[in-house]
Amino acid sequence: MVEKVRLGVVGVGAQGRLYAELVASGRVPSLTLTALCSPNPASRSIDRHQQLADRLHVQLFTDLRELLDSQRVDAIVITTPHYEHPRIGIEALRSGVHVLVEKPVGVYTNQVAELLQVADQHPHLTLAVMFNQRTNPLYAELKQAIDSGRYGRLRHSSWQITHWWRPDAYFNLSPWRASWGGEGGGVLINQAQHQLDLWQWLCGTVERCFARVQFGYRRDIPVDDEVHALVQFAGGPSGTFMTSTTDLVGTDRLELLFDRAKIVVDNSADLSIWDFVDDERQIARSISPADAAKVPSEGFDRSRFYRVRHRHYSSVWGEQHALVLENFGRHLLDGTPLVADGHEGINSVRLANAMHLSAWTGEDVDLTDFDGDRYLAELNARVAAEGRFPLRD
Amino acid sequence: MVEKVRLGVVGVGAQGRLYAELVASGRVPSLTLTALCSPNPASRSIDRHQQLADRLHVQLFTDLRELLDSQRVDAIVITTPHYEHPRIGIEALRSGVHVLVEKPVGVYTNQVAELLQVADQHPHLTLAVMFNQRTNPLYAELKQAIDSGRYGRLRHSSWQITHWWRPDAYFNLSPWRASWGGEGGGVLINQAQHQLDLWQWLCGTVERCFARVQFGYRRDIPVDDEVHALVQFAGGPSGTFMTSTTDLVGTDRLELLFDRAKIVVDNSADLSIWDFVDDERQIARSISPADAAKVPSEGFDRSRFYRVRHRHYSSVWGEQHALVLENFGRHLLDGTPLVADGHEGINSVRLANAMHLSAWTGEDVDLTDFDGDRYLAELNARVAAEGRFPLRD
Repeated sequence: MVEKVRLGVVGVGAQGRLYAELVASGRVPSLTLTALCSPNPASRSIDRHQQLADRLHVQLFTDLRELLDSQRVDAIVITTPHYEHPRIGIEALRSGVHVLVEKPVGVYTNQVAELLQVADQHPHLTLAVMFNQRTNPLYAELKQAIDSGRYGRLRHSSWQITHWWRPDAYFNLSPWRASWGGEGGGVLINQAQHQLDLWQWLCGTVERCFARVQFGYRRDIPVDDEVHALVQFAGGPSGTFMTSTTDLVGTDRLELLFDRAKIVVDNSADLSIWDFVDDERQIARSISPADAAKVPSEGFDRSRFYRVRHRHYSSVWGEQHALVLENFGRHLLDGTPLVADGHEGINSVRLANAMHLSAWTGEDVDLTDFDGDRYLAELNARVAAEGRFPLRD
Repeated sequence: MVEKVRLGVVGVGAQGRLYAELVASGRVPSLTLTALCSPNPASRSIDRHQQLADRLHVQLFTDLRELLDSQRVDAIVITTPHYEHPRIGIEALRSGVHVLVEKPVGVYTNQVAELLQVADQHPHLTLAVMFNQRTNPLYAELKQAIDSGRYGRLRHSSWQITHWWRPDAYFNLSPWRASWGGEGGGVLINQAQHQLDLWQWLCGTVERCFARVQFGYRRDIPVDDEVHALVQFAGGPSGTFMTSTTDLVGTDRLELLFDRAKIVVDNSADLSIWDFVDDERQIARSISPADAAKVPSEGFDRSRFYRVRHRHYSSVWGEQHALVLENFGRHLLDGTPLVADGHEGINSVRLANAMHLSAWTGEDVDLTDFDGDRYLAELNARVAAEGRFPLRD
């Protein structure tokens, strides 16, 4: 007998179905699918959910409490609309059930902090987050190399990520999409969560943020569809971040400059590393006045000071999600370190919130003492103006 | 007899020598070199200046007044340290002499505004600025295409320009380099002036600016060697700008997104244009819900909506400068439109000043009502702290 963790999928939308299929198909050896849960009584898709449950030979629950009390699951993965993630996570943890939560962990920091507090009260239970892009070998290897110290200190970084073009009809696929009350934001809270996580994973957490955000710039939505931000990472390095859902062509380009290397990642697939022969500060000091005079007219060849390597990485849609699911199961079975602990999930939520708040107030927002109450009040003002969803607390 | 404009070169440093040689060698048909002027009585290089004058068979003046009264020049090009540009320009215009001024036109907006006022009082005289990179065929053609309206409205733009790596010895080549009192700033007032001009030439003038600036970040200089800025162009589009003089490898990448095209310029030499088949807003509205559902997993091919063209442009060091010199001469001889009127020179100075001011104050600076007095006070505080140069007024 191979020991497996019994998993319930809570939320049977596109992501929930994907995870259910991945586990049911045997692509996640440490997990076995035992239940689906469609906790929204107003769902128009309950028949389809039942068909999926029947096909996968598992029980469909329409009440979260019943699922958690059923003794059918050791763990759940939460794929409901974002606002519900913390509440469902809290209920599961309090019922002794491990939790893997889809990104974003929540919509605003107060609700995420509440979830983390409950997780801290249940140290024997696991709270993990689906930051599947951390398993992209490119980023995983880059993270390892950065943490080893071989590149030296970070000087600055920029990420332009506009590859997620979204047509109008996309925003109408679900009634909660692209609304303040239903989704809690636009590109920042949905698509860019991965990059807001990866960027801080690689560069350190963001401590200050100033942003210009366009809301409904080129789409008929009330939320953000274009964002430009300047951040300051812990320790001082600056970063620029830019994202948009209306660039038909799309760019995905990450740059990092370290004291001993420059790194460029294109399309999350093509890695270029310029390894310097020494700390750049020492190289710069070693140049003679005669050579320095030749620098502005490009009459001085500096390529002798670095070696460049290019490498292409390929990734398959869905593979990363299976890896995070398997990592979650293995962690529960044998303590394998998590790809992404749930506690780290607050960083990308805080940064998205800070970008909104900066745009709304014109302020350079301090994230080391982030005012979650103020953000929630500003968010609720927009939820109220929309008039379609309840206020949050 | 071919009519030529008699040119004096004021300031005999590296740029002054380059321009004198270009004109004396016949590469600028509309100009004839008649004088050099080394107006700094403390210059240690006066013997070398005399040798150059002798070799080029022109008179060397060491007093600007004498040059202007000599009846030897119809026009001058000013290549002294930046702070002196406006004063020398004003003196020349008041003496009936046309002026081509090296970038930046000045160090702070007050002194540039004074120069422009004097130029306005002498409408029969020409004040031009050496924005040689406007003559790069890539940018010249791009400017023309943008102005024709074929790309529609600008949505956003970013420019990362870090190709001008400068070793320590570069900053010691002249005693005024990289000081507040001698040069008035670092990368923003020296290297990046071209991009701060081109960017606004292509995208519109900047109306708001927030910046994080590092002063002496990885060099032993008091001025800026790394800058990250968020701007807002006239009419609303946002932009991100990043520059540094300590990136050993260097990046030069300009992106522009329009309603009907996306444009990327790499290394000021490689132009890529994605022409959309329609306004992107219309394309986005035309996508069916079924197709929209396939977009996130990249299951929908959007390449049918654009045609991409790539083109490489080459440019030769010094050629652009000769083109601006010739344009200046032709303008004086037959009214050929200027590549860059001196009045446009204030835009890049104002933007550099605004980036400094934002970094010093933490404010999102309004450039439509820029406070030149406040900037000058902040600048003088740094000049005073340095203690090597006089305060400015």
